[in-house]
Amino acid sequence: MSNVQEVKLLGAWPSPFVQRIKWALNLKGVEYEYLEQDLINKGTFLVQCNPVHKKVPVLIHNDRPIAESLIILEYLDETWKNCPLLPQDPYQRAMARFWAKFVEDKFTEPIRQVLFVDGENQEKEVKKAKDALETLEGELKGKKFFGGESVGFVDIVLGFISIWLEVIEEVACVKVFDSQKCPSLAKWMEDFLEIKEIKENLPERENLVYFYKIGQFKLAMAAKK
Amino acid sequence: MSNVQEVKLLGAWPSPFVQRIKWALNLKGVEYEYLEQDLINKGTFLVQCNPVHKKVPVLIHNDRPIAESLIILEYLDETWKNCPLLPQDPYQRAMARFWAKFVEDKFTEPIRQVLFVDGENQEKEVKKAKDALETLEGELKGKKFFGGESVGFVDIVLGFISIWLEVIEEVACVKVFDSQKCPSLAKWMEDFLEIKEIKENLPERENLVYFYKIGQFKLAMAAKK
Repeated sequence: MSNVQEVKLLGAWPSPFVQRIKWALNLKGVEYEYLEQDLINKGTFLVQCNPVHKKVPVLIHNDRPIAESLIILEYLDETWKNCPLLPQDPYQRAMARFWAKFVEDKFTEPIRQVLFVDGENQEKEVKKAKDALETLEGELKGKKFFGGESVGFVDIVLGFISIWLEVIEEVACVKVFDSQKCPSLAKWMEDFLEIKEIKENLPERENLVYFYKIGQFKLAMAAKK
Repeated sequence: MSNVQEVKLLGAWPSPFVQRIKWALNLKGVEYEYLEQDLINKGTFLVQCNPVHKKVPVLIHNDRPIAESLIILEYLDETWKNCPLLPQDPYQRAMARFWAKFVEDKFTEPIRQVLFVDGENQEKEVKKAKDALETLEGELKGKKFFGGESVGFVDIVLGFISIWLEVIEEVACVKVFDSQKCPSLAKWMEDFLEIKEIKENLPERENLVYFYKIGQFKLAMAAKK
């Protein structure tokens, strides 16, 4: 018999996609068992829980697995109603989903590519990531968080930049973030990392740098799906 | 003063992404004004309604625009509760979202690429699209629709293949769909096209072939975002 609130998270510590789920679970005060996965020699349990993509994060709620970070976030929001991530109004929900998808397509994907390519191709990806940040700066302007006065869906989805962006910049020897051009985003990152449930148990910067530098970053970023 | 149910759809007739929205509006019985857009010389209204991507479809409900086909579908489902596309149960909703995202990432993107590349690269994309269809065949097996007994979110998202796939195969001179390997999907396509609200006002096959053949297919498929 399964406990009605039995929650497990299959993750990998360097994955920003897993971090999103940890943040959402922390914010909602959901207790869970965290199960670190070996992404090089993938365990049968991970493959069984996510047979299509074989990637983390996977949330398991009462023995039922869910994959894909944004889909897990929506599930958490529909299952634990406290500390809502998405607004109640359908139009505002659509806007939050729009910006979350924008982050995924226009920022996360280029910044992932920055690690894999070099030369002109890398410059192109850096340019895409910069452009996306400037668009996000425009969307954030005048608000404390994308979610308004408190952290919401888009904040959780973009939040990884507050830790991972400098690491990626260091490892790939590029400069993506310009606090002069994106002052609202710079302030947002500071405010984001001030939140108790956000700043708990973050990966150490030097560990991330080491991990990415030794080439395992491929796995960390591929862990999305 | 705007009418509380004033719905407009900015679209382009050859776009499968626009077709999804037409289908959902038809199924829910929502009356709307359809505004065909010129995707070569984009109008200021389209740019104003979707300044980030400048693409169709855009749904405008009481003067408030929403872009991105999957996000529009979720908005329609939250705003017009009849004929629900997503299930009520959060886990089943997550599963529907998972398979819709699978269609987008693993099938729609490769099948779009099939039109743009050739040789070995095209073969790779064809292989990806075939693999995705076989995975979807496994998910569909034993059910009439992905949504169960009636059309749901995944059916609407994948539905374009019932019209567009043969067109793409003809234009790109490739074979993607194998009804021997995917008998459930073959039956599903037939059943899908039997539905009154689905089969109304579909683009003519020969018009699509002509459109794609003269190279404008680039716009039709790029119209997603």
